Amino acid sequence: MNAPVSNPAQLSIPFSSQTAQVDAAAVKPLPNSRKVYVQGSRPDIQVPMREISQADTPANMGAEKNPPVYVYDTSGPYTDPAAKIDIRSGLPPLREQWIDQRGDTEVLSAPASAYGRERLTDAGLTEMRFNLQRQPRCGRAGANVTQMHYARRGIITPEMEYIAIRENQRCAELGARQRELLTRQHPGHDFGASLPKQITPEFVRDEVARGRAIIPLNINHPESEPMIIGRNFLVKINANIGNSALGSSIQEEVEKMTWAIRWGGDTVMDLSTGKNIHETREWIIRNSPVPIGTVPIYQALEKVNGKAEELTWEIFRDTLIEQAEQGVDYFTIHAGVRLAYVPMTAKRMTGIVSRGGSIMAKWCLAHHRESFLYTRFEEICEIMKAYDVSFSLGDGLRPGSIYDANDEAQFAELQTLGELTQVAWKHDVQVMIEGPGHVPMHLIKENMDLQLKYCAEAPFYTLGPLTTDIAPGYDHITSAIGAAMIGWYGTAMLCYVTPKEHLGLPDKDDVKDGIITYKIAAHAADLAKGHPGAQIRDNALSKARFEFRWDDQFNLSLDPDKAKQFHDETLPQEGAKLAHFCSMCGPHFCSMKITQDVRDYAASQGMGEAEALEKGMEEKAVEFVKQGAEIYSKV
Amino acid sequence: MNAPVSNPAQLSIPFSSQTAQVDAAAVKPLPNSRKVYVQGSRPDIQVPMREISQADTPANMGAEKNPPVYVYDTSGPYTDPAAKIDIRSGLPPLREQWIDQRGDTEVLSAPASAYGRERLTDAGLTEMRFNLQRQPRCGRAGANVTQMHYARRGIITPEMEYIAIRENQRCAELGARQRELLTRQHPGHDFGASLPKQITPEFVRDEVARGRAIIPLNINHPESEPMIIGRNFLVKINANIGNSALGSSIQEEVEKMTWAIRWGGDTVMDLSTGKNIHETREWIIRNSPVPIGTVPIYQALEKVNGKAEELTWEIFRDTLIEQAEQGVDYFTIHAGVRLAYVPMTAKRMTGIVSRGGSIMAKWCLAHHRESFLYTRFEEICEIMKAYDVSFSLGDGLRPGSIYDANDEAQFAELQTLGELTQVAWKHDVQVMIEGPGHVPMHLIKENMDLQLKYCAEAPFYTLGPLTTDIAPGYDHITSAIGAAMIGWYGTAMLCYVTPKEHLGLPDKDDVKDGIITYKIAAHAADLAKGHPGAQIRDNALSKARFEFRWDDQFNLSLDPDKAKQFHDETLPQEGAKLAHFCSMCGPHFCSMKITQDVRDYAASQGMGEAEALEKGMEEKAVEFVKQGAEIYSKV
Repeated sequence: MNAPVSNPAQLSIPFSSQTAQVDAAAVKPLPNSRKVYVQGSRPDIQVPMREISQADTPANMGAEKNPPVYVYDTSGPYTDPAAKIDIRSGLPPLREQWIDQRGDTEVLSAPASAYGRERLTDAGLTEMRFNLQRQPRCGRAGANVTQMHYARRGIITPEMEYIAIRENQRCAELGARQRELLTRQHPGHDFGASLPKQITPEFVRDEVARGRAIIPLNINHPESEPMIIGRNFLVKINANIGNSALGSSIQEEVEKMTWAIRWGGDTVMDLSTGKNIHETREWIIRNSPVPIGTVPIYQALEKVNGKAEELTWEIFRDTLIEQAEQGVDYFTIHAGVRLAYVPMTAKRMTGIVSRGGSIMAKWCLAHHRESFLYTRFEEICEIMKAYDVSFSLGDGLRPGSIYDANDEAQFAELQTLGELTQVAWKHDVQVMIEGPGHVPMHLIKENMDLQLKYCAEAPFYTLGPLTTDIAPGYDHITSAIGAAMIGWYGTAMLCYVTPKEHLGLPDKDDVKDGIITYKIAAHAADLAKGHPGAQIRDNALSKARFEFRWDDQFNLSLDPDKAKQFHDETLPQEGAKLAHFCSMCGPHFCSMKITQDVRDYAASQGMGEAEALEKGMEEKAVEFVKQGAEIYSKV
Repeated sequence: MNAPVSNPAQLSIPFSSQTAQVDAAAVKPLPNSRKVYVQGSRPDIQVPMREISQADTPANMGAEKNPPVYVYDTSGPYTDPAAKIDIRSGLPPLREQWIDQRGDTEVLSAPASAYGRERLTDAGLTEMRFNLQRQPRCGRAGANVTQMHYARRGIITPEMEYIAIRENQRCAELGARQRELLTRQHPGHDFGASLPKQITPEFVRDEVARGRAIIPLNINHPESEPMIIGRNFLVKINANIGNSALGSSIQEEVEKMTWAIRWGGDTVMDLSTGKNIHETREWIIRNSPVPIGTVPIYQALEKVNGKAEELTWEIFRDTLIEQAEQGVDYFTIHAGVRLAYVPMTAKRMTGIVSRGGSIMAKWCLAHHRESFLYTRFEEICEIMKAYDVSFSLGDGLRPGSIYDANDEAQFAELQTLGELTQVAWKHDVQVMIEGPGHVPMHLIKENMDLQLKYCAEAPFYTLGPLTTDIAPGYDHITSAIGAAMIGWYGTAMLCYVTPKEHLGLPDKDDVKDGIITYKIAAHAADLAKGHPGAQIRDNALSKARFEFRWDDQFNLSLDPDKAKQFHDETLPQEGAKLAHFCSMCGPHFCSMKITQDVRDYAASQGMGEAEALEKGMEEKAVEFVKQGAEIYSKV
């Protein structure tokens, strides 16, 4: 999963911790939307949602009140006009008390990581260093501070309650006060998922306890708003950001993060590989309300100047601790790349395309033994449980072309990931499993089936898959097809692909295209699974469309700005937004208008439409013609 | 299926038949591509293909010759530098001799349609009229000139042979002279399709005879290059163009057609609804190498000033003849909208969203009887067989929202379409069936299954389906997900959706986005079905990608211009196109490069990579480290 980075030309902007500012585009309110907070069982559980209010149905169509629609909101305080945003101080540490009250952690006097201490005292970094007053926290000696550990002991944490409220999106309330229309939904086809009508805190606990869902929340990232990844919850999406040796600055990476969460990114991976990645990551985490993932081997490789064969367990271990103390919520670790699997890639069209996978393959080759990721896996678990970092077990051997899909190497690694899952669970460490890459449609389901079988329902987290290789420049689309399908089959989180995949450095526009495309895939999957309440937004938007409430149609959409812009390109006048037709067909061909005329006619006869038609009275037909009702309303 | 039209602002450009010019963008050669013609059994069967030549594999990776790749080419003579293009004279009538030689048609002295004659003699239209010297042709009295009629009598027409050559894309030749790598393909999952390894003219004939495929070729459109639509052939895509009351000119519509076929449109529907649609259509047909479809009821409605209830069989009949004499290859006819089905739409969220469907529903309502499309269906067949116009039986009751998917109204109509298919087949008239609209993923397959059941494998032709309603501005993507899936299940042709769907008037950029997105969906479906040879282009492109042949990667892609542009945004230097890494990861993180290093190392030891690794000699590992081989090549 490769990181987008920005145009090298932009590198010239000097970054200073004194003057760093939030991206103005990230704090612009969304149209007709209001940030609301739903309180849990205690006053410090305040779950954010976006409330989109709607206009009434026009008088000639029934003058009905249309309720506000609540949507899952990943944007954090940025879209709350009441919040004071200053990226130099970071977001408020909303979970700090909860962590503290559990009494199983201690505040360190200095970072335990040697590299972390070094960066902290390097005077040359003062200008770019985030000024964090807080010291890192760690589990007390012998303590296991993972959400899984609490869950398995029957404890419902405030995080779990927060998640339950968040996942429900006030559906039940809407159902109680709204008519049938908005909550009606097709029964889904869920391939064996267990989707309750209402998510309770106890359900969250149980899913985490059995490993079927994870709550990626490092104790050193108290700024993050709790969220869950699992097949029995809403399908999530991840956005990759991060600089590379070739470009991008700290400011830009923070902007990409705030931009990605504005449009719906549920987690963000910082895949930086250039200089100052420690400092870049600090800025991102301190300002991120969503979990942050990384691939620690990238930074470890930088520490040995890019020579994979010189990587050691000691360097890697210090990197894990360094990042855990900064607050990274999940680590991609390619522990499944075993020595014996490397030869299986020899006959491939495109070899090993995962960066982490190729680094470890090279290490295995050079040393001719199993990697330290594999041999030291239990030691890694010890670190993970002291900070509650979740595993994202990396798919180092994922296929990079249709040709290589579902081969021996890929599934051998998956089986190993399943074995490692059991080891992690033995330590009550949370785990998700990475998958796909390039896979034709008919081979996608096998990936999901084998993952469920080998990995005992640990959440699956897949890149795409891309369903064909022939469309570079459009790989957000080739992969959205596969992502929607694998999401339907049971994948819990979809890693986005941007239009620049395989070609270059995504800019902010590409990040947004990737996010919206993946929100589509994830939502299409929720609908197909029959996730309770998933259809409310579709129903509300379609009702607005039918009633020619153009602004509501825009506001309820995933990208109100673009929907409005496209509409206005042809009919920019404000009046056109009240028009009972659109520019596609013009007033004489508007089928929705004709349908409404049919209903109006029936109503004017004092009967329901169906009744009017079923009675089938010739007389009525004659009347209809006689009236000559000018059925197209004039604007 | 709604028509894109252009910005009204552009209407100011006056159109003149004297000065009309081809769009310069439509005749620009595609990079590293050559138009080739494969000759059939007679010299006048010349089947066009696009040959994309490739560079050799770099010396350090084996210096292999890479064969040219042949791809299906819908662009007609426009991309042939040897062709003389003048849209004022139209394309050469390549099928004229074949039609003439069959001896079953006659050239009329004047159009049989009253409206056609009227337009021809209207002096006010001189300036915009296409100057066609040829008179329309019609089947001789009692003759049936459909490809299905020939097929059922065992005749293999030149059109059928042309199609067989075209569908094969020289795969067999490539297989014979190329190594395993390019032709290797995953076995497909075809849901009961019958996909032969090699398409023969006899197979084409047989599929047409049994109604499982259609060849939409009006005898008055001799300019068109034969193509076939059926589940056992490559999945095709259609692009909608056409002006509306609100905008667009003849010049623009011709440009949209040439633009759409450049990027892969297999057929084009002209859905014009404004003024001068007779003349607009003439210009499009005369310059189109792909079949043109229309919805004749749109024009008929214009003739009664938009009053649906005033439509009559006589007006409609004259419109059919008018358009058949111009050369329209297939007609969408909403004959399945029966009176009893209209009340079934009363409980819908979005009523009737098909324009044709709503017009006919209104007619049924006003007259309270079955429409003339239904009652006069056999008379319509008589017209179709005199010109070989194919039916596209319209889905007037397709769902316009997720809420309305797969409802009683939709499937009642589908069943009627199946009955009408049998009537058409009795007349040896070719038929395809229109379907979907908005359907969540898990309900898509039911559409295909019922269509196969009710319509006896007549080709299915679907709009999308859109798999969610919540992303106006991105409905090319919401629908590509559904289109790829239904194409895999057996749909023969996919009607594109552009990003402007539901919002406004698509411009040329939107047309291209729609086309490329649907080429992706169609190709993903071909791969999943296991269409023989479908994977060659993926394999070739992935091989180019792995070998860092950047230009080949661009040239083999669906949109070479965009792929190159995206790459060059970050690394514009020519040298970067020889670089063994890209801007995403930079030189130190290129996994493909590492894979190659593994192979190189093995080769340097005089053994295969697998062997080197399997032998597992510590000694070799030590050597590898000692060599310290700088494994990242310098640019």
